[in-house]
Amino acid sequence: MSNIPSSASSPTLQLAQRISSAIYANIPLPALEVGKQALMDFIGVTVAGMEEPLSQILIAEAEEAGGHPQATIIGSNSRANVQQAALINGSAGHAHDYDDVHINMGGHPTVPVAPVVFALGEHLDSSGSDLLTAFIAGVDVECILGRYAGPSHYAKGWHATGTLGTFGAAAAASVLRKLDTPTTAAALGIAGTQAAGLKSQFGTMCKPLHAGHAAATGVQAASLASREFSSRLDILEANQGFMSTQSESVSEERFSVALSNRAFAQNICFKYHAACYLTHSSIEAVSSLCHANLFAPGDIESVEIRVNAGHFDVCNIEKPTTGLEAKFSLRFTAAMAMAGIDTSSISIFTDKLTQQPELIALADKVRVTAHASPKPESVVTMTLLNGETHTEAVNVAIPMTDLNAQWEKLERKFHALVDSRLGSEVAHDLINYCKTLDEYDDLSEFYCLLSAPVTAPRST
Amino acid sequence: MSNIPSSASSPTLQLAQRISSAIYANIPLPALEVGKQALMDFIGVTVAGMEEPLSQILIAEAEEAGGHPQATIIGSNSRANVQQAALINGSAGHAHDYDDVHINMGGHPTVPVAPVVFALGEHLDSSGSDLLTAFIAGVDVECILGRYAGPSHYAKGWHATGTLGTFGAAAAASVLRKLDTPTTAAALGIAGTQAAGLKSQFGTMCKPLHAGHAAATGVQAASLASREFSSRLDILEANQGFMSTQSESVSEERFSVALSNRAFAQNICFKYHAACYLTHSSIEAVSSLCHANLFAPGDIESVEIRVNAGHFDVCNIEKPTTGLEAKFSLRFTAAMAMAGIDTSSISIFTDKLTQQPELIALADKVRVTAHASPKPESVVTMTLLNGETHTEAVNVAIPMTDLNAQWEKLERKFHALVDSRLGSEVAHDLINYCKTLDEYDDLSEFYCLLSAPVTAPRST
Repeated sequence: MSNIPSSASSPTLQLAQRISSAIYANIPLPALEVGKQALMDFIGVTVAGMEEPLSQILIAEAEEAGGHPQATIIGSNSRANVQQAALINGSAGHAHDYDDVHINMGGHPTVPVAPVVFALGEHLDSSGSDLLTAFIAGVDVECILGRYAGPSHYAKGWHATGTLGTFGAAAAASVLRKLDTPTTAAALGIAGTQAAGLKSQFGTMCKPLHAGHAAATGVQAASLASREFSSRLDILEANQGFMSTQSESVSEERFSVALSNRAFAQNICFKYHAACYLTHSSIEAVSSLCHANLFAPGDIESVEIRVNAGHFDVCNIEKPTTGLEAKFSLRFTAAMAMAGIDTSSISIFTDKLTQQPELIALADKVRVTAHASPKPESVVTMTLLNGETHTEAVNVAIPMTDLNAQWEKLERKFHALVDSRLGSEVAHDLINYCKTLDEYDDLSEFYCLLSAPVTAPRST
Repeated sequence: MSNIPSSASSPTLQLAQRISSAIYANIPLPALEVGKQALMDFIGVTVAGMEEPLSQILIAEAEEAGGHPQATIIGSNSRANVQQAALINGSAGHAHDYDDVHINMGGHPTVPVAPVVFALGEHLDSSGSDLLTAFIAGVDVECILGRYAGPSHYAKGWHATGTLGTFGAAAAASVLRKLDTPTTAAALGIAGTQAAGLKSQFGTMCKPLHAGHAAATGVQAASLASREFSSRLDILEANQGFMSTQSESVSEERFSVALSNRAFAQNICFKYHAACYLTHSSIEAVSSLCHANLFAPGDIESVEIRVNAGHFDVCNIEKPTTGLEAKFSLRFTAAMAMAGIDTSSISIFTDKLTQQPELIALADKVRVTAHASPKPESVVTMTLLNGETHTEAVNVAIPMTDLNAQWEKLERKFHALVDSRLGSEVAHDLINYCKTLDEYDDLSEFYCLLSAPVTAPRST
């Protein structure tokens, strides 16, 4: 393609230039490491999400439509064409809302991009280092656009995982297809004019669908661009382009600063509890206090959880009676943490759990109060029957710097999600593949491991 | 489904109620007649558009992805699954921008809906009257939403054919699938959270893609909803729903008035000239003067075309040198009309045509001026060498009431688009099928006629 606009320094072309020149050797080591962790974590949440009704509906749709078996539907026995696999894996990966987050994107960075990386990478026989390069580039695009669009995009009602995720997905697909700068800009344009997803759909199957739609649209956009399907090459900044229609807080300055960042992936934050993200800091603080001081639940007189008042509308259900409500109860999740219950397990959150007298009794000891002025951390103060008080402040939105410790936490989560479905041995092998992904040119065995065995080892 | 919100009178549910209770017997006769004309016209522009590069790219994509051969790709020898066929036919149908328009929608009503009607109707073996009922319902939804959203939606940068078209497509698919009210509301929700399309993509292949994307998304949404994929049932009016994110001129009053309209289809306006829509009134006025007064091009001294000043930026290229530029030249298209050249033929607009001395000489007699105050019509005044002056005012945006005359005009356009590709006999048969569409329970022969013969009769 040769029709590059005269202003070659426009944001869209600058971004396309960055994407098309992405190479593995330039990725900072911590970003590479966290990238592997994010891909592993994505596999875990996707395997778990594949059994959800929404995933099964999408699989049934794909079967009725037909398609060449080009890519693995993770954790299932089915294969589908690349676009279908991206849609299904992306939706399944977001089904439990248990996938990672990134403050600069204002959304879930991995779930629109990883499905592209795996599905298209499998179809194109890409190497492990190609997959990582594409993934890192995709996350970068999401975070750069999050900075560029500013807070009004999400505040107005757009689900950034769907909208900005579409650009990230297109970027990852462009890297795997090794598109040049103008063709990549066209891919961003084709993706951007189809980017969508409304926050008002939170709480329905459409929320995870946004992630899958983003992945599928990104795959389609890069493929169309590679066939010389035409698009504006300035979709971001154009009059009536993406930013002017969907943000009122656009900042080219923030864009420039973000563009100079070497890799955003290293600041991905992971979720370790199968509950609302705003309960996580409190759960961690409670657990930490109990572990550090070695007192038993029976030793506790009262617990105060101090959070921002904004949490009250989101996750302060006083007396949950269903497993889903428990996920949105600061009091109940704190009670689970006191009792040493594994909150990383999706299957633990049952309606029955909310009827357990000892958990109800513990929850009754918890009082939720508001910070006098907004603070990022949750501050938990425990008063014991013996008069001692212990306080701990935790903010899970700070990325971990000890990546070995992060591997350990993520591996436990992975086994909790995957063992019952694929077996612990396969889970173990998948973890090792992810840890050394960049060493493989041929990933065909890896994709086999991603498929469910014909008889799922549910009893392991 | 039983989870109907308590406010059963909300706009989304009212609209869903209207869609799910659409029946053939209630369609006013003129709407039925114009509906048949619109479906026929869609076939014509789609057959012509299928040879365009963008359509060929989309066909190649579908072939690489694979899929069950469920539906006809119009004017080709290929079949594809329903969603792929909707995408391809919708995009091809808008490739020449020669498809119909509707003032209440602020866009092209047929091209996002008709591809759903044909592709899904073929897959479900729907009857001709089912197709018409679904089509009329889809167009109604687009026009009702156009009124509801008001002018700011398009003005801000949204391409209504893509955005509102997605809802229309979902409505048509819901009718064909005979979904109940809440399931139809879910289909609108799934569609609405993926509705997209930016006007800044005008002039690229993405503009026609918007129509195809709308059709494919509507097909998907109704299918997902029929499988109990969950969605909000109030996507239009919800906080952070479609209207609040994409319009600043929402009017529930306009919505209510529009909802009480029996059928918008009868006000569809067709395009008869393969040039910019804003040249059409002038072309018609010139033709009308020449025909009524029987003077020859050589008798003309000068021509004044008076239009709104806004046209100057759109279609006032003084001296076109390419076929594409000729389409945006009031002077040159008027010259073509004076010379009796068939402006309904897509293939007539060649670069070579713009070099013909007699046409250049005629164009040089034309002066374009602006109305003192905005008027919808184009006013053409011809001064002859003998001193006579003749004036004619035409506004093509007024729907024709003489539907027989409209059939005649549309049939001529249809033959001009289809004969060279499918043969004039097939074109003739297709016209007859469309005229009596509601008489057929089995349309399998009709779908066969829509396919290109193995050896295309280009010389006919």
